[in-house]
Amino acid sequence: MPLHIRIITPIVTEGVRTLDDIESLQSDDLRVSQTLIDIGPASIESEFDGALSVPGLLARAIEAEQEGVDALVIDCMGDPGLKAAREVLSIPILGPSETSMHIAAMLAGRFSLITVLESVRPMLSDLAKIYGVWERLASIRVVDIPVLEIGADLGRLNAALAHQAAEAVAHDGADAIVLGCTGFFGCAEFIAAELAARGLSVPVIDPIPATVLTAAALVRAGLTHSKRTYPTPPQKQLKGFSLPEFRR
Amino acid sequence: MPLHIRIITPIVTEGVRTLDDIESLQSDDLRVSQTLIDIGPASIESEFDGALSVPGLLARAIEAEQEGVDALVIDCMGDPGLKAAREVLSIPILGPSETSMHIAAMLAGRFSLITVLESVRPMLSDLAKIYGVWERLASIRVVDIPVLEIGADLGRLNAALAHQAAEAVAHDGADAIVLGCTGFFGCAEFIAAELAARGLSVPVIDPIPATVLTAAALVRAGLTHSKRTYPTPPQKQLKGFSLPEFRR
Amino acid sequence: MPLHIRIITPIVTEGVRTLDDIESLQSDDLRVSQTLIDIGPASIESEFDGALSVPGLLARAIEAEQEGVDALVIDCMGDPGLKAAREVLSIPILGPSETSMHIAAMLAGRFSLITVLESVRPMLSDLAKIYGVWERLASIRVVDIPVLEIGADLGRLNAALAHQAAEAVAHDGADAIVLGCTGFFGCAEFIAAELAARGLSVPVIDPIPATVLTAAALVRAGLTHSKRTYPTPPQKQLKGFSLPEFRR
Amino acid sequence: MPLHIRIITPIVTEGVRTLDDIESLQSDDLRVSQTLIDIGPASIESEFDGALSVPGLLARAIEAEQEGVDALVIDCMGDPGLKAAREVLSIPILGPSETSMHIAAMLAGRFSLITVLESVRPMLSDLAKIYGVWERLASIRVVDIPVLEIGADLGRLNAALAHQAAEAVAHDGADAIVLGCTGFFGCAEFIAAELAARGLSVPVIDPIPATVLTAAALVRAGLTHSKRTYPTPPQKQLKGFSLPEFRR
Amino acid sequence: MPLHIRIITPIVTEGVRTLDDIESLQSDDLRVSQTLIDIGPASIESEFDGALSVPGLLARAIEAEQEGVDALVIDCMGDPGLKAAREVLSIPILGPSETSMHIAAMLAGRFSLITVLESVRPMLSDLAKIYGVWERLASIRVVDIPVLEIGADLGRLNAALAHQAAEAVAHDGADAIVLGCTGFFGCAEFIAAELAARGLSVPVIDPIPATVLTAAALVRAGLTHSKRTYPTPPQKQLKGFSLPEFRR
Amino acid sequence: MPLHIRIITPIVTEGVRTLDDIESLQSDDLRVSQTLIDIGPASIESEFDGALSVPGLLARAIEAEQEGVDALVIDCMGDPGLKAAREVLSIPILGPSETSMHIAAMLAGRFSLITVLESVRPMLSDLAKIYGVWERLASIRVVDIPVLEIGADLGRLNAALAHQAAEAVAHDGADAIVLGCTGFFGCAEFIAAELAARGLSVPVIDPIPATVLTAAALVRAGLTHSKRTYPTPPQKQLKGFSLPEFRR
Repeated sequence: MPLHIRIITPIVTEGVRTLDDIESLQSDDLRVSQTLIDIGPASIESEFDGALSVPGLLARAIEAEQEGVDALVIDCMGDPGLKAAREVLSIPILGPSETSMHIAAMLAGRFSLITVLESVRPMLSDLAKIYGVWERLASIRVVDIPVLEIGADLGRLNAALAHQAAEAVAHDGADAIVLGCTGFFGCAEFIAAELAARGLSVPVIDPIPATVLTAAALVRAGLTHSKRTYPTPPQKQLKGFSLPEFRR
Repeated sequence: MPLHIRIITPIVTEGVRTLDDIESLQSDDLRVSQTLIDIGPASIESEFDGALSVPGLLARAIEAEQEGVDALVIDCMGDPGLKAAREVLSIPILGPSETSMHIAAMLAGRFSLITVLESVRPMLSDLAKIYGVWERLASIRVVDIPVLEIGADLGRLNAALAHQAAEAVAHDGADAIVLGCTGFFGCAEFIAAELAARGLSVPVIDPIPATVLTAAALVRAGLTHSKRTYPTPPQKQLKGFSLPEFRR
Repeated sequence: MPLHIRIITPIVTEGVRTLDDIESLQSDDLRVSQTLIDIGPASIESEFDGALSVPGLLARAIEAEQEGVDALVIDCMGDPGLKAAREVLSIPILGPSETSMHIAAMLAGRFSLITVLESVRPMLSDLAKIYGVWERLASIRVVDIPVLEIGADLGRLNAALAHQAAEAVAHDGADAIVLGCTGFFGCAEFIAAELAARGLSVPVIDPIPATVLTAAALVRAGLTHSKRTYPTPPQKQLKGFSLPEFRR
Repeated sequence: MPLHIRIITPIVTEGVRTLDDIESLQSDDLRVSQTLIDIGPASIESEFDGALSVPGLLARAIEAEQEGVDALVIDCMGDPGLKAAREVLSIPILGPSETSMHIAAMLAGRFSLITVLESVRPMLSDLAKIYGVWERLASIRVVDIPVLEIGADLGRLNAALAHQAAEAVAHDGADAIVLGCTGFFGCAEFIAAELAARGLSVPVIDPIPATVLTAAALVRAGLTHSKRTYPTPPQKQLKGFSLPEFRR
Repeated sequence: MPLHIRIITPIVTEGVRTLDDIESLQSDDLRVSQTLIDIGPASIESEFDGALSVPGLLARAIEAEQEGVDALVIDCMGDPGLKAAREVLSIPILGPSETSMHIAAMLAGRFSLITVLESVRPMLSDLAKIYGVWERLASIRVVDIPVLEIGADLGRLNAALAHQAAEAVAHDGADAIVLGCTGFFGCAEFIAAELAARGLSVPVIDPIPATVLTAAALVRAGLTHSKRTYPTPPQKQLKGFSLPEFRR
Repeated sequence: MPLHIRIITPIVTEGVRTLDDIESLQSDDLRVSQTLIDIGPASIESEFDGALSVPGLLARAIEAEQEGVDALVIDCMGDPGLKAAREVLSIPILGPSETSMHIAAMLAGRFSLITVLESVRPMLSDLAKIYGVWERLASIRVVDIPVLEIGADLGRLNAALAHQAAEAVAHDGADAIVLGCTGFFGCAEFIAAELAARGLSVPVIDPIPATVLTAAALVRAGLTHSKRTYPTPPQKQLKGFSLPEFRR
């Protein structure tokens, strides 16, 4: 039976995460499913959006463990709810930001993040500090395209990403690029080719594939997060939210 | 007209934050009010609890600014929703954890936090890293009493707090103590006296008074958080939550 | 009876700290007084000047505690004698550099200091390291105007400060500005307006008001520095200086 | 065709790395092979041993890329020759120390390494600094058993490992354990069970399986190390070593 | 002509620094002289004492450069006035704390300081942060003997130093010892022998000889401090101190 | 009898290290000798080259201690084999990179390294991290001249070094320069003069003289590296290398 990994896209907008994306990740021994959340924001471009996605994400995460899914991946570079979800789950749940930044730190001296908007910068900076890779972060650059307009003009998006990536390599000392929004899924190949054409070839990390494959590796290695870092919360009243019961 | 500061207690349990606490903070030129949240957890003892308190807290925070309150204080040492709230507010909103840790860093070389339960430790560690005071944190110690049992036996609580504080000073190198739960409001005096009696006198920071007074100082200095670090979120659909409109 | 805070201006030049400055800080419950020192430099623009201001400052500080003043503020961004003074005092004494940098770290991700001369840069860098906010310091910029010429042409000064502040926000990643010389008292409003006019609005921290108000908040919260970090010095012979006796 | 990963055991002693170890890692889509080196030390327990293993390891690594192997794993927690090998290879080569430490940093707040001898401690400390996880390293503990005696008494080894792991969790603040010698392959399960029995359950990372599975994930994600961090060395005379030619 | 290095002992107590100490440092090509200061404290055991030693030290330092001395060494582990003196000098002036800590960082992974009194601990901690060796400092330990009683019972002093040094190596992870008071001159040999007898042999750095010899090496290498880090102070009025004129 | 220090040039190319260089370092009480290695690379411009120089260097280092040499200096800024050599030696062995970076950290706030080629940058960055001076490193700049072409056109070399040094001071915030290749021996004077001519005067550290003189100072102070940081390796089989026996 193949491993089953579920991607939780912590927004309420349909059609942003395409079926093509998911299918490309599957293989004989890896099943990938995906779900949106019921309550939350249309997209995540701020701490405010991220915070409002967490209750919906927690519901989906608890359900997935109950269904027998092997691991979860949060489909947002803000890694919203990652720590809260680990407290209520036994199976691994990975954030693409944490995972991609550690992979980048293994493959290169310093890396840059290319993301959507200036408003996301403080959130990504804080994550780099918590994850302990702050010294390896060469820069954060933005293409200035909102999440929900990513699909509107892929040519413009790819050109903007390649331009910022090239600037990061040439001027900021980046030896690797991490795509700073999971909505950029699929753009890594074009960016890598553009960088190579300019003599600036470096690894370009597409967070969703990298994180799904890392989640699978962790499951196969029998590993999950530490319950001493992420202890199960004590039982108590919760008003206004109806979350599925989780294992205590 | 006196300055008006509102304390938002981000839980749904009535009677935990007492009227006495609030009155003791008031003076001729400082009015202090307090509110609970409508939806959220009974108490906060994990990242999970903290995350579920944020939607309710954001609603109360936006309302308060609309009412003309001058500054806000979050009544929880996890500082839940601090960054999200700053994005939607113009008036200062302070977290007692951020504020107390910076005050401790100003008054002493290293400080210890004494909090309720082991499950809170990772949350406080992460905050110390984000706030940049990690190197100043001598230790985090716990009294192993849940938040909702704090009021049940104040003698036992005070003894446990004084014991852990004394251990922190004697063995961990703490030169100041920060009370690690806002439910400990009012215990600082007893702890300080106990420490003095053991020849271990150090400042004991009670987060709610310290944070309310710092908030008042910021308002009087004409200061609030930076909108470049906390940019106003873009307008978008939000499903399942009905928050008041905020200024954009 | 109002709280009484004294500003010690650690130089011997009369007329630099004006009566207007002090009056603007006072209120019904806050009395502010000010004093120069007897022996020391005309102004402080180097470690050398700072070191020579300390004996005079210590004398004034001990006297103030004996008089019953509630807290002290050092009127120089080099925070000269801060640690030495805390060793001989029970009441709080605050440095504007330490206080302003911690406030900036609370209000913004990164901040820049705008100071008088290049010669002050190493001193401020060292302070940022000791205070633990080095990673939050985006840059130090100078207006290249000596301390004693600050008052000569306020228009030129304001223009230079606003220009450097704008450069810090636009190019160095500063999300807040800290005025890097207490002689810039009163300039924050103009700089903030200029930044707003250029679409670069960030908090501008004027160190003296911010520090005086923080000192008042600490006194009201019953807090002072730790005597374990700042232990009272042992009694011994002191040749060439006649300092008032301090409490041991 | 399955992915092919080769483990290079950088010592000259036959029989230390067993066939069982390798077979347990294989699956339908993952082939694992293994090789010793021709010149070098009997085992690696110091920087001296590690340095003398590098020429032999580089030869094996270049050969493997020429053979069409997809990725390489160094079979020693000193990660000897990792940086040198990346300079002469296009395919990924992973060190178990770098990989395991980053995995531990993703799964837990802090982790401890349990290794063979005191003499290995400085080497592992330096690696933690270079890899950027120094702050996450709770402690390094040793079982005081030389590498070549690991197989002599597995019962004693397992007991010693479990004891040190339990001490690390109970006293050093470790929330995860990384086995600090690849010779400990296979011991993780016993240690995890012992920790669970003592109420100290945390993830126990067995470096070789974790690194082989991560290497496979990187290959599947199309990622390898950055040639800007690991540039191809210029051609030049090399006396006393006959290495295979590598791609320039 | 031999190199001439002068030791400035920044206290007013005669007889503490003995002639024997100085003579032992001299050789055919190295002349060592020594001087006390005119105004200042009897000994240095706090930031307060240190601050009051600086004006006297600056006078002696400027005089020495005028006399043609080649380099200066401050005879106190608080390195009082080091930065101020560098601003007014062209010749090298070294602090034994800065020099010894860097030497220790070159010879060992981590080191401990053994000093006189608890009151000195915060001063030495701050220096370790400014000098950038904080992560290399395993611990600071004290013998609890005031500076002016060091000479009273050398047997007791040596025993206490050896005991604390052994504890630092055995329990704090120190791989080298730095004597934390220049009054301990001459004790290194005894401590090293005691450590060796206990199987805890590590380098024991005696700050004055190490710093005098490093100063000589810098002069021979034609090196001195950077005038960009230590710029010459601008000319201005100085009241209450009569310092010799320095080169501008 | 004069002190005897030997420089080990860890390459096989004759004529790169000239007799003039060595003679200039000698004095009545300091004898300096020099040797190449037997097996290894023609020059060192990568981690790969550095790794292949170590076996040859270890042989020469052990021989030198047996001959009675007092201290050793590695003639390459990659400090190849430094840690391995310290494990097998009792006498001090110094790397010019470690030594020069610590000297620079003592003389200036921040420093820049000027080296040969881009390929050396990651190696020097890693060393700065291990040595603990990363925060003091303003930048690494290159002249883009391979090691073996250094002697071909000294005018071009000096001009390129002076240009990069001036840029480092003017734009990167460097307050000192460290020559980043020991092949630049003798260029410091020209660079210093050029910097002075441009009003950018800072210390320029020539690593070989600075390291030889520091090694002599350590020997005279009776200091060597800690055998707890660099423990003697256990005896074991070594295949393919014939190293002289070292003291255990």
